[in-house]
Amino acid sequence: MRHLLEAAHLSREEIRSIFDTARAFGPKIRNDESIPLLQGKAIVNLFYENSTRTRSSFEVAIRKLGGVAMNFAASTSSAAKGETLIDTARNLEAMRPHAIVVRHASAGSPYFLTKYVSVPVINAGDGFHEHPTQGLLDALTIEEKLGTLEGKRVVILGDIAHSRVARSNIHILKKLGASVAVCAPPTLLPPKPETLGVDYAYRPEELLPDADVVMALRIQLERQNRMQIPSIREYSAFWGMNQARAALLKPGCIILHPGPINRGVELDTELADGPRSVILDQVANGVLIRMAVLAKLVVPEATAEWLKKNGGNRA
Amino acid sequence: MRHLLEAAHLSREEIRSIFDTARAFGPKIRNDESIPLLQGKAIVNLFYENSTRTRSSFEVAIRKLGGVAMNFAASTSSAAKGETLIDTARNLEAMRPHAIVVRHASAGSPYFLTKYVSVPVINAGDGFHEHPTQGLLDALTIEEKLGTLEGKRVVILGDIAHSRVARSNIHILKKLGASVAVCAPPTLLPPKPETLGVDYAYRPEELLPDADVVMALRIQLERQNRMQIPSIREYSAFWGMNQARAALLKPGCIILHPGPINRGVELDTELADGPRSVILDQVANGVLIRMAVLAKLVVPEATAEWLKKNGGNRA
Amino acid sequence: MRHLLEAAHLSREEIRSIFDTARAFGPKIRNDESIPLLQGKAIVNLFYENSTRTRSSFEVAIRKLGGVAMNFAASTSSAAKGETLIDTARNLEAMRPHAIVVRHASAGSPYFLTKYVSVPVINAGDGFHEHPTQGLLDALTIEEKLGTLEGKRVVILGDIAHSRVARSNIHILKKLGASVAVCAPPTLLPPKPETLGVDYAYRPEELLPDADVVMALRIQLERQNRMQIPSIREYSAFWGMNQARAALLKPGCIILHPGPINRGVELDTELADGPRSVILDQVANGVLIRMAVLAKLVVPEATAEWLKKNGGNRA
Repeated sequence: MRHLLEAAHLSREEIRSIFDTARAFGPKIRNDESIPLLQGKAIVNLFYENSTRTRSSFEVAIRKLGGVAMNFAASTSSAAKGETLIDTARNLEAMRPHAIVVRHASAGSPYFLTKYVSVPVINAGDGFHEHPTQGLLDALTIEEKLGTLEGKRVVILGDIAHSRVARSNIHILKKLGASVAVCAPPTLLPPKPETLGVDYAYRPEELLPDADVVMALRIQLERQNRMQIPSIREYSAFWGMNQARAALLKPGCIILHPGPINRGVELDTELADGPRSVILDQVANGVLIRMAVLAKLVVPEATAEWLKKNGGNRA
Repeated sequence: MRHLLEAAHLSREEIRSIFDTARAFGPKIRNDESIPLLQGKAIVNLFYENSTRTRSSFEVAIRKLGGVAMNFAASTSSAAKGETLIDTARNLEAMRPHAIVVRHASAGSPYFLTKYVSVPVINAGDGFHEHPTQGLLDALTIEEKLGTLEGKRVVILGDIAHSRVARSNIHILKKLGASVAVCAPPTLLPPKPETLGVDYAYRPEELLPDADVVMALRIQLERQNRMQIPSIREYSAFWGMNQARAALLKPGCIILHPGPINRGVELDTELADGPRSVILDQVANGVLIRMAVLAKLVVPEATAEWLKKNGGNRA
Repeated sequence: MRHLLEAAHLSREEIRSIFDTARAFGPKIRNDESIPLLQGKAIVNLFYENSTRTRSSFEVAIRKLGGVAMNFAASTSSAAKGETLIDTARNLEAMRPHAIVVRHASAGSPYFLTKYVSVPVINAGDGFHEHPTQGLLDALTIEEKLGTLEGKRVVILGDIAHSRVARSNIHILKKLGASVAVCAPPTLLPPKPETLGVDYAYRPEELLPDADVVMALRIQLERQNRMQIPSIREYSAFWGMNQARAALLKPGCIILHPGPINRGVELDTELADGPRSVILDQVANGVLIRMAVLAKLVVPEATAEWLKKNGGNRA
């Protein structure tokens, strides 16, 4: 694995190995112990879209590994002067970082980047395409809570058509043995949902009783104006996770959300903060997954050695 | 002390202890020696309002203690997507920082935060409410210059009604034995100024001859349009500190300003850069105060030990 | 040398000494070895204009020397509240950084700063005046590629009138023995180009056949609306470096561009990515030059000692 571009290309073994590394990092991080695998290494965070969550998660991951994070936000950069992604990336690369984390509105741009730079590229979200570290952290969180993904039913609720989170999740969850169903108003489903390899329904009520996991996706409030949903109120009434719908769930069913939450739209506050919610576990696992991906891509040998000394049996 | 939320709740002893710590740090910092009390610790700076001064002062304080500063500006963050303060903070906390420094336009939001996160919260300014580290650094600067605050007369000039700086200063100055008077046009005074426990006057001339300290506050130029002051020119003519008004001051009287200065509005250039001005001492003390607060909140035992080895007799 | 304000004031010996230091740093940096000359030092990057390239180059340089970079962008700072440059700088200085790197739209502002702060000031671009580290890195790149600047012909193509890059380059290139010619439409040349000590022509075809070096400058696309160039298309047709014009060049002639490139306007993609282009060498040398300047200004003795132990014979 030289880059992390899409969950679609990860093998079951690669996913397992990332999980094992993340799990081995966990206790150290919780004890505030140092894991200096990226000491003296600089990682570029090249974000063409705003993001507290993902950028800061990568930044924390880099720092917990002893590395230096260099943040480049498009709004305060030469990108505002119309420089191409390739020129920006090549210029950043000439400053000799050890990896580039990129978020960009165009699907495929991280792949495109790998043709022009020689360091590992990590996709932190590319258009409607993929967000592989999000898929990994969600799957790790589910596995942690349910013991396994094998045979579990995951229902993803929300704007499937425009969601890189959904896409990355579907790839990973299926590889780990889960079955996935998606649910949204027809305007927020892709034209042929079955091509994603998932079941689908227009109404949550059809899917929720069988769910082991419900993943509510963020609704882009601005879509309302583009007529893709009739109104926020209607979305919330028919597809939002609220107490009434939660009453349909099996006892052990957990609820995920990639954040930021529109409370009261796709997810009610009682559920977001309630006992089924594993949202903060997702955030904590996000740091561990990104640490694992960075360590394995930037210093694979040192990471393998560290795992032998400190890690579990599998990694 | 688990958090620093408001000067109103600080005891005289807590203020003294912060001052003693700041003073013990001073010589080391001036000699460029390291005080690695926050080595390996990450502190989040969560700023919902622009600020060079305060944010960078905290950032420098964190770095001088060997810690890592993680800055989150609302304009480039998920806050722009409408995420609540609580969700942002909880997400940041799930990344396991050791403290959160927060500036927010809503009074009380740092207090609110403490209900949702488990790490120390430091208020870096909340609406019109408080800005406790500013009050502390101002009081430390005055004490340094005048030897004591006991029995001193401090005159605060400017927009008292909307000033968290004034509010925090009044609490601390009074606890340390000073008497405080405020002065502003009636529209910039709170409805009943005496409830602040201070004297007041509408014209500076009534208060300046007795002052040991004059603190000129920044005028928000945009208030002019809201009809709270007749015009900048008039404010400057009747309430601005200029050479004519400075002539009324006692010889040893010093002048403070929290910055950024509107030169020629609330404070003339000759005074800002003159011998009475202690403005740059305020900035230098700002770093020391923030170091003291961070060290005491994040690593209280290590700080106490460091002080025993390096510090003054009192701390 | 206490500051780096303008290339005009650098002696040939100072330039040589910066080059020797940069060259001595090169192999270490390429081997990822540490050069901890700025360990424990904080450098302020005070940028009043957007810049990925220059700010990040300084940031990387600071970090490769083990220092801490503190970035202040005007858009998110008190500058937005109307604070003067001097007040901002003095406030930053009171936090005890070890140098200030400044970019500002006003020519002369870094010089002005030196009157008010006591630490070294480095000009990272001031209006249409100078950008000395850019001139240094360009000259170092040329010398590296051609062996010497003595007797070489450098043709600078583009908006000479408004280019601090051109100005700094002309000073340095001439001091190192090159002859310089500039070329632009009359509206983009200064009124009397000969006062720059250079030859000039309105058409590139007159100058290109003799060039050892062609430096294409970025066209500010917004100038089109100010009627300084008839149209982007016309500029590109008559002054842009394209394959047809490149055919006029001598075999060993190299092409530079300070970035960000408007591909297809002042420089065609085939040339920017072709064998004559040394654009990525410029970026890599930019980090080395900024490391050399920072080390020599902030810790001159330690740098001299380091060079004795590690460096070339000359430095």
